[in-house]
Amino acid sequence: MSELRYDPIQRRWVIIATERSARPTDFRRRDATPPEVSNEAASCPFCPGNEAMTPHEILASRPGGGPNNSSGWDVRVVPNKYPALGIEGQLERRAVGIFDRMHGIGAHEVVIETPDHHGELATLPIDQVLRVLSVYQERLIDLKRDPRFRYILLFKNHGAAAGATLSHPHSQIIATPVTPRTVAVELETCKSHHQIKERCLFCDIIGNEAEARKRILIDSRHFLAFAPYASRFPYELSILPKRHAFAYDGATGEELVDLAEVLRCSLSAIRIALGDVAYTLALHTAPNLLPIPGYWRTIREDFHWHFEIMPQILPEPGVQRSSGLHVNPVAPETAIRRLQAAERDSPVPR
Amino acid sequence: MSELRYDPIQRRWVIIATERSARPTDFRRRDATPPEVSNEAASCPFCPGNEAMTPHEILASRPGGGPNNSSGWDVRVVPNKYPALGIEGQLERRAVGIFDRMHGIGAHEVVIETPDHHGELATLPIDQVLRVLSVYQERLIDLKRDPRFRYILLFKNHGAAAGATLSHPHSQIIATPVTPRTVAVELETCKSHHQIKERCLFCDIIGNEAEARKRILIDSRHFLAFAPYASRFPYELSILPKRHAFAYDGATGEELVDLAEVLRCSLSAIRIALGDVAYTLALHTAPNLLPIPGYWRTIREDFHWHFEIMPQILPEPGVQRSSGLHVNPVAPETAIRRLQAAERDSPVPR
Repeated sequence: MSELRYDPIQRRWVIIATERSARPTDFRRRDATPPEVSNEAASCPFCPGNEAMTPHEILASRPGGGPNNSSGWDVRVVPNKYPALGIEGQLERRAVGIFDRMHGIGAHEVVIETPDHHGELATLPIDQVLRVLSVYQERLIDLKRDPRFRYILLFKNHGAAAGATLSHPHSQIIATPVTPRTVAVELETCKSHHQIKERCLFCDIIGNEAEARKRILIDSRHFLAFAPYASRFPYELSILPKRHAFAYDGATGEELVDLAEVLRCSLSAIRIALGDVAYTLALHTAPNLLPIPGYWRTIREDFHWHFEIMPQILPEPGVQRSSGLHVNPVAPETAIRRLQAAERDSPVPR
Repeated sequence: MSELRYDPIQRRWVIIATERSARPTDFRRRDATPPEVSNEAASCPFCPGNEAMTPHEILASRPGGGPNNSSGWDVRVVPNKYPALGIEGQLERRAVGIFDRMHGIGAHEVVIETPDHHGELATLPIDQVLRVLSVYQERLIDLKRDPRFRYILLFKNHGAAAGATLSHPHSQIIATPVTPRTVAVELETCKSHHQIKERCLFCDIIGNEAEARKRILIDSRHFLAFAPYASRFPYELSILPKRHAFAYDGATGEELVDLAEVLRCSLSAIRIALGDVAYTLALHTAPNLLPIPGYWRTIREDFHWHFEIMPQILPEPGVQRSSGLHVNPVAPETAIRRLQAAERDSPVPR
């Protein structure tokens, strides 16, 4: 069984997941596009017809009906065959010498975004992107019911350079018994900002970007897609709901329709400007509310959910790994000008 | 000119360094070993005879004497030709809307570790490793004199997967006007541990590891090389002085001799066990002491300098980039057993 260990120096949990070293991969080189896609459909566990190659499905949308684990689905959610965390058991939190550990309990699911092995969020029909976003929401709501979990982490790796091991378009959901550090830092910063100013930090950033007008890619009815002022990576984008909202689960149907368009346009602008580069897409949403009085008391007011798109054009530099200091060779204002031009030149069909 | 921008959400500075996108590379593939090393010596700016291809040297050790920027050196320090931060100018810290920025002022130097294009810290003679460690110390002491700098960051990328762009063995030193976040977090954690317990957190970890005896690779006279309890990466190692010491600049000559051996043995064990994998080596030492009364008042007691060795076998996973949650498929206890076996089987000559 995997386990969670706490690093008291960096104040973060690490998953020690020995089962995951056995994962297969269909990437030969570290490229976004695998070299021999044609041979893959037969052996791809995420392709229609190969449903038996995955664990039993958790959820699937089958417009024409049909039994579980048959083909005919348009989005399918299955347990990860090589989970970082296992679903069975209790946490048994305990101290080990001066350290802390718990069993690696959690959920690790895969959202297969389309039956099309060569599909891609950047080019899928809007309806299909919307289906994926709705499935994200459904899984989040369901997983939040498990009292062992503290956070539901949702992300997507596109391309081997971003860490994907299979090329068929898919996202991952990891329910963890801890709040991951990046999110924990955001929660703390937002809380202390709100404590002083009684305003949401992310709402302030939306206001600032709307005024500066130099880093915005898309300003839709409900969402703002922009390059963060202190972008860590070239062509990094954030997508924020303009309405203050602390959790993705609460997004309305109308908002998701708009989001599908904004997300696809953002990814498609990157694809037109840079080619099929690797990227990671991540959702930051509120953690599961603990039944401890006052623990996340203010989170509804001070946190603001959002997506981050992090293109991986360069290998992770040593300076970042050594010190947490990011060196970004492309100014966000330059990135936005290029992405805007890309979008103008090649409008994406709906 | 590059600039430093502050991310108020993640509480970290980011360097926006547009000049660095022009860097040349001699790596064709993302491998640790470049495919065609034989053609490179002629065009490598770090090889003897090519001294004119680098900016004027800052420091060099020439056992047989000779003018600056001539060959005959065994370690050579030059300014980085594509610096992340520039040496000339003032910081001009200022607010921009709700954000903060300053000019990208700092120093970015390259330590050429050996004249041998195919050399490597893991296999160099001990005397040469010692020379490199002494040059690190000399540059740190010199750069700390500049009142504009807050931290001197020292790291080495071995192999393109770790972010190196040139294969000739070299380290980098970046003097920054801010304390990078990873170090800032360590300083805070150590401070609050010491405030409660009046003990150093790293000294406590040394004690814990000595007792647990499951994660130690080398226990020398002055240093302990071990796999951290919550290792983020497979085969990650920490090297700590056993004597409490807050800054690398204060290491004695005798300690450096011992460190040269411990560092080389650690890298060599990794090389024997895993082959020529990419890795990042990083020094965490105390920041430059500010002339603000009480600011780092307790740092001498609560911080403990150390090296981290981070092998890069896998591409940075998306889960880590998304959330700061590391998933490590190799338990540190397993890593140490394999490294110990590697070291036993192939003892390295002095």
